[in-house]
Amino acid sequence: MYVNEVLLSPNNKNTTSNKLFVIKIGGNVIDNPENLKKFLKDFAAIDGHKILIHGGGKIATEISESMGLVPNLVDGRRITDEDTIKVVTMVYAGLINKNIVAQLQSYGCNAIGLTGADGNFIKAKKRPVKTIDYGYVGDLHEGSIAPDNLTNLINANFTPVFCAITHDGQGQLLNTNADTIASALAVALSKMYETTLIYCFEKKGVLKDISNEGSLIEEINPVVYETLKQANIIHSGMLPKLDNAFAAIANGVKEVIIGKSDDLETLKHNIPFGTRLINNL
Amino acid sequence: MYVNEVLLSPNNKNTTSNKLFVIKIGGNVIDNPENLKKFLKDFAAIDGHKILIHGGGKIATEISESMGLVPNLVDGRRITDEDTIKVVTMVYAGLINKNIVAQLQSYGCNAIGLTGADGNFIKAKKRPVKTIDYGYVGDLHEGSIAPDNLTNLINANFTPVFCAITHDGQGQLLNTNADTIASALAVALSKMYETTLIYCFEKKGVLKDISNEGSLIEEINPVVYETLKQANIIHSGMLPKLDNAFAAIANGVKEVIIGKSDDLETLKHNIPFGTRLINNL
Repeated sequence: MYVNEVLLSPNNKNTTSNKLFVIKIGGNVIDNPENLKKFLKDFAAIDGHKILIHGGGKIATEISESMGLVPNLVDGRRITDEDTIKVVTMVYAGLINKNIVAQLQSYGCNAIGLTGADGNFIKAKKRPVKTIDYGYVGDLHEGSIAPDNLTNLINANFTPVFCAITHDGQGQLLNTNADTIASALAVALSKMYETTLIYCFEKKGVLKDISNEGSLIEEINPVVYETLKQANIIHSGMLPKLDNAFAAIANGVKEVIIGKSDDLETLKHNIPFGTRLINNL
Repeated sequence: MYVNEVLLSPNNKNTTSNKLFVIKIGGNVIDNPENLKKFLKDFAAIDGHKILIHGGGKIATEISESMGLVPNLVDGRRITDEDTIKVVTMVYAGLINKNIVAQLQSYGCNAIGLTGADGNFIKAKKRPVKTIDYGYVGDLHEGSIAPDNLTNLINANFTPVFCAITHDGQGQLLNTNADTIASALAVALSKMYETTLIYCFEKKGVLKDISNEGSLIEEINPVVYETLKQANIIHSGMLPKLDNAFAAIANGVKEVIIGKSDDLETLKHNIPFGTRLINNL
């Protein structure tokens, strides 16, 4: 069914132009200018359609502190209060996003820096107040992504660069998890493109032994995933990431890669990197 | 010749869809949330293609001060040093731009927030150091604007919202005068669209007597302009604004309006407002 959808899509004439990479980098890449520079060069060198989603890094905290703001914590959880949403809008959508865009342009990539408010690309709902009021935090929902608007932009040969800010459609910007945005974008766009979702972080990929970079698991399918979970080889923080990844695959994404930002360059030589999650059942 | 260009443009099928309004608001509108809200509602209500360019307002100074930064002045001139370009990128491209976009989206306008780095839309050259080093200030030059990229975006029914930041194409963001950006965009796009350039500020328009809002000059052509200059009715700060406006008209812009942001709503009823500058020689 997925193949049919791709072939039937009127905008896409062949498989080559129909590939889309949705790539997310975390704060640890942002925090290191040299890592970021190498990553952006490698990202710019990827042929064809691509989208970048970036996290925040430590800069938001540093700016907050320099403004004399104190983190608002309730039961140990960080709250996005009125000052915080201002700071993250400044730092994520302004400072980080536009510097990434300017760098990508210098490497010949036609980047365009966005929040979810721009083009109404990503709408979210302010998280309902239960025991904790998280403040201006937005959760995605069915229909959050406007794939037609985004396809117009991508097909006009722009490379969207999203920070992790969405809006509620009523004028309010919202702080949203970057991993979730990446997977929602990949799923929504998999109707039009053959989509690969890549999470770049500080490790080589999913490791059997977290202290040994040589213990990389190169490929995981749902059956292998179950076995690894039961053997307690994959546990704690990695579980939601992988659950999320397999959910994306179940919803149309062709494959998910979890790997190191430094290794992205292998992609242009068609050499696999990191851990490849596939659904070959 | 201009009419021929419009008729021959392949993307534009009729005169109605071929109109473009390029509208600039200054810091005084940004600084007043109620004025800004009314302006954005009126802007959203304008039919057809439109571009917004916004200035900075007092917020950048306030954020700077809250971060403990001291304005860097040389010979009384404000310098865009390394800290300042960071702050203006945060405030103009992040806080102000994205809040404007979110508000416009809530009024049904498909806004997309941009700097000149995005889509490589506006390139500038760092101002050469002569007696004063202005720091990260960018001046526009011939070929600064990429009209094709921008036309793609506009024809895909997005409404560009530009802050006054450009880039040098080498990865450096630059602080650039918003009036100049507005006029350069209007001129570059007048090859594809029937373009009206509107400067919104705090006065009703060009006044014979600056203290009397009733002394509005409704229309100025180059001959009238010469007369008004010689009679010293137009002088000092208004001269560069008007010189700039007539230069835009000489380079393809159909008309320039200088008026009050509050009065923009009359535009949707096709009622003129402010001072209309035309070239009817």
